[in-house]
Amino acid sequence: MDYQSRQNTLQQTLDTQSFDGFLVTHPPNLRYLCGYTGSNGLLLFLSGRRVFFTDGRYTEQAREEVHGARVIIARGPLLNAAAKRIARLRSAAIGFEAEYTSVAAMAEMRKLVPRGIRWQAASGVVMRQRLIKDAEELQIIGDAVQLGAAVYEEARAAIQPGIRESEVAGKLEYAARQAGADGMSFETIVAAGKRGALPHGRASVQPIPARGFVVIDSGVILRGYCSDMTRTVHVGRVSREERRWYKAVLEAQLAGVAAVVPGKTAGEVDQAARQVLRSAKLDRYFTHSTGHGVGLEIHESPRLGRKQAEMLAPGMVITIEPGIYIPGKGGIRIEDMVVVTDTGCRVLTPVTKELIEI
Amino acid sequence: MDYQSRQNTLQQTLDTQSFDGFLVTHPPNLRYLCGYTGSNGLLLFLSGRRVFFTDGRYTEQAREEVHGARVIIARGPLLNAAAKRIARLRSAAIGFEAEYTSVAAMAEMRKLVPRGIRWQAASGVVMRQRLIKDAEELQIIGDAVQLGAAVYEEARAAIQPGIRESEVAGKLEYAARQAGADGMSFETIVAAGKRGALPHGRASVQPIPARGFVVIDSGVILRGYCSDMTRTVHVGRVSREERRWYKAVLEAQLAGVAAVVPGKTAGEVDQAARQVLRSAKLDRYFTHSTGHGVGLEIHESPRLGRKQAEMLAPGMVITIEPGIYIPGKGGIRIEDMVVVTDTGCRVLTPVTKELIEI
Repeated sequence: MDYQSRQNTLQQTLDTQSFDGFLVTHPPNLRYLCGYTGSNGLLLFLSGRRVFFTDGRYTEQAREEVHGARVIIARGPLLNAAAKRIARLRSAAIGFEAEYTSVAAMAEMRKLVPRGIRWQAASGVVMRQRLIKDAEELQIIGDAVQLGAAVYEEARAAIQPGIRESEVAGKLEYAARQAGADGMSFETIVAAGKRGALPHGRASVQPIPARGFVVIDSGVILRGYCSDMTRTVHVGRVSREERRWYKAVLEAQLAGVAAVVPGKTAGEVDQAARQVLRSAKLDRYFTHSTGHGVGLEIHESPRLGRKQAEMLAPGMVITIEPGIYIPGKGGIRIEDMVVVTDTGCRVLTPVTKELIEI
Repeated sequence: MDYQSRQNTLQQTLDTQSFDGFLVTHPPNLRYLCGYTGSNGLLLFLSGRRVFFTDGRYTEQAREEVHGARVIIARGPLLNAAAKRIARLRSAAIGFEAEYTSVAAMAEMRKLVPRGIRWQAASGVVMRQRLIKDAEELQIIGDAVQLGAAVYEEARAAIQPGIRESEVAGKLEYAARQAGADGMSFETIVAAGKRGALPHGRASVQPIPARGFVVIDSGVILRGYCSDMTRTVHVGRVSREERRWYKAVLEAQLAGVAAVVPGKTAGEVDQAARQVLRSAKLDRYFTHSTGHGVGLEIHESPRLGRKQAEMLAPGMVITIEPGIYIPGKGGIRIEDMVVVTDTGCRVLTPVTKELIEI
């Protein structure tokens, strides 16, 4: 990874915004900027210099992983160590990640530095940089999506009436481990029959019923990057009404994908998918937004919700995942990951969206 | 779970501290207070009444799970919906969870309510209540520990030179799923040979070497509650020096367990374990604290670190987990979960701590 150029880009942003320093604490941002993958770390930008703080548990790991920053192993809270370094400046404006710094931590930070140091809340500074994936990131994300698809296919092959949702999830997760995934990008969802009406129905011990839809939403982490996909299969013969539902969701999904073009807003993509479900009189069952960015985090910017004004641009990686959830009946969701290209988008998820009856 | 009495206890605390209302946002606290297990939710205490806010994805789930509160499905951000309800009071002091509310959210919250509403940062209010586990919680935690131990034994049986760390972790996690765990309480650590010197060495694709220690640190989630255990085994014949190291860590662990008595401080327990390693001249390799509370979260209060003044009390559930990490050689950690009783503590983890050579 080109940590040097990422750090340079951030430094330029900080210079433009007249920050004398910037404190990075959000773990995915640490990983993005300097390669550190541990849980406790803190990266301080100080006009041209970078200092990385962690604790004794991560001494070896930090030395191996951290790029472009001096590593300091702090005794006691990292914040105190960083504050001591910042205090040397006497008078400075230090930015911090307002969406990842708690009010309690902020109160502590204020106490730790002299009056001349002004803490300045800043939101989304690193995320805005992470929005556009570079070639190396796209390569890894592509690999993660492929791996996620392969383990999904293994799990799907296990679906049959009577097998527990959790066993399907277990097979999927085991296959992911075997294939070299770092882990899962979120708790695997396997929601069968009526449970499919819970959009976030984590796999339970409920057996798959004799007939009905089964929603499988899963993702793996590969070299830090997340994949995310959903397919819905049907156990037993599908009724005419169920087929209509499925078709509507699939058409909404395809309309969403077709709407992904640089220069369009995230809200327009959401609108394109939602409109199809509205025409089918199913939009009241579509209770979430159409998608979200994916990268080092499973949910990152942009959010593809109603009226979101964020403009799509080449190199963004997003999900397109409309769904319907009919209380007492079940749910259907279809989700691909796509990368925004110069002229539209490329679907990454290599799995059929045709309705499968098991 | 006795949500009613939990809510009553919190209400009493709020009354004592002259809060007119209190906003709960931290998911484990939501689960503890009203049973909700989803990811987006907000519980508002308003002198005797409780209102729960979530979004459309969780309509069914909230209706099924939430106890003792009126459920409102918000369109748009939950904070806005809650603020609207709070604004009706005109003048009030509303507490919020300062350690789980970001500076960005706080700025938003201030904008959303009229001047008469004073937001008051409060830390640890619900956590202090969660410190002491009730009988039902202890039952579930005991079951989680048993399950965690059983799947550890399955994984241990798989350890042999050449097998990948990630495969050992995969077997453990698959067994957990099969046995009905909700999931893992953290990323499984399998760190063999030199990698054992990374205290947080998540399972990698590295094969287990022909000889050396293997640290396995894992936990399951059962009905929301976490288990946590570590054992260290040795592949191949153990050298005299390695045996001495293991013995020192085991003695430190036993000294830590023996020091767990109501009325002692968390720091005294840490000191007891650390002293044994000091006598063995190994304390410089013990780079973390001796343990932490466990419950709905894998790391919760109290923290058993140096000089921690928190007093132990019956019903607390904590880990005792000293370890040493010798760069270039490997690591050893031994961890049990214990519950503080009226007279000392009871070890929950039912797995031998004798040195096993594989």
